[in-house]
Amino acid sequence: MDDLLVRYPGRYVNLMERADWEYASRVHRQDVVVLVPVTANREIVLVEQYRVPVQSVVIELPAGLVGDCETHRNEAPLEAAARELQEETGYASGRLQPIMRCPTTAGLSDEMALFIRASDLMQVSNGGGDESEDITVHTVALDAADAWLDAQRDAGKLVDPKIYAALHWIGREGGCE
Amino acid sequence: MDDLLVRYPGRYVNLMERADWEYASRVHRQDVVVLVPVTANREIVLVEQYRVPVQSVVIELPAGLVGDCETHRNEAPLEAAARELQEETGYASGRLQPIMRCPTTAGLSDEMALFIRASDLMQVSNGGGDESEDITVHTVALDAADAWLDAQRDAGKLVDPKIYAALHWIGREGGCE
Repeated sequence: MDDLLVRYPGRYVNLMERADWEYASRVHRQDVVVLVPVTANREIVLVEQYRVPVQSVVIELPAGLVGDCETHRNEAPLEAAARELQEETGYASGRLQPIMRCPTTAGLSDEMALFIRASDLMQVSNGGGDESEDITVHTVALDAADAWLDAQRDAGKLVDPKIYAALHWIGREGGCE
Repeated sequence: MDDLLVRYPGRYVNLMERADWEYASRVHRQDVVVLVPVTANREIVLVEQYRVPVQSVVIELPAGLVGDCETHRNEAPLEAAARELQEETGYASGRLQPIMRCPTTAGLSDEMALFIRASDLMQVSNGGGDESEDITVHTVALDAADAWLDAQRDAGKLVDPKIYAALHWIGREGGCE
């Protein structure tokens, strides 16, 4: 049996079943664009927000759903990346370069993250997210990022592991970190 | 409204709602143990398997759920890590060290990954997973891992970004990669 069934149609997330496997799928099946923003001063730009599912503050790369509302349902991934970066962090990017597209948790969801390097950054606003979000922006020197993330965890926050993937990619481009 | 509701009770995964937020939660709410296995020859041990939610072959770190069946429902995380590593890869580890515990996709699920470094590895069987799994094991030299992963993606496979986080952590310990 390999039929795809919607076990429960949510408003934002459906619970699916296929081949005896249950998993979550967003209703509009959009990719998540995940930014890897690096400033001219060799800093990474991160965001902090409360996440309902884990009931905790989480440090993450700036990210958002492609076409997440009716006004921009048909936007391209790079448009979504530019929009989310500016909404969340206040930075505009002169150079957005796709890195790769990866599943975030392939046993539990069909969610796919499209990682995008953002450089030539210019601060144009304060960021903080749209009206539904409450985001704190952190600009962290790359050579101190591991220690800074350790301190955030010591303070009781959670850290999204995709940040460490980003640090690996940045280090690979920029020589030894 | 901050009440927690089970919108749909699945057999393996529940669709939850809290504060107008829908997300997936495993029925037993177990952590996922995610191994970062490094051999004495400076190789990382990876697994390849077909993943139903993304309908694709995925290259991943060896991983599994703590207490994923009745016979070991109350196992400790390090027991689960040892069990999953050997089931999937055939390696026994003389040294398991927790790295950190992170949310895998904090906007969509309460899933938490406990990353565990595995060293002092000894091959004791062929791996391949339990009777429900069909896993291929890859032992990849660390200094060639990025190129190898690029080639896997070029061949149409997906790559779990947690592998790059692992490469960052290994590089941080081992000096410049």
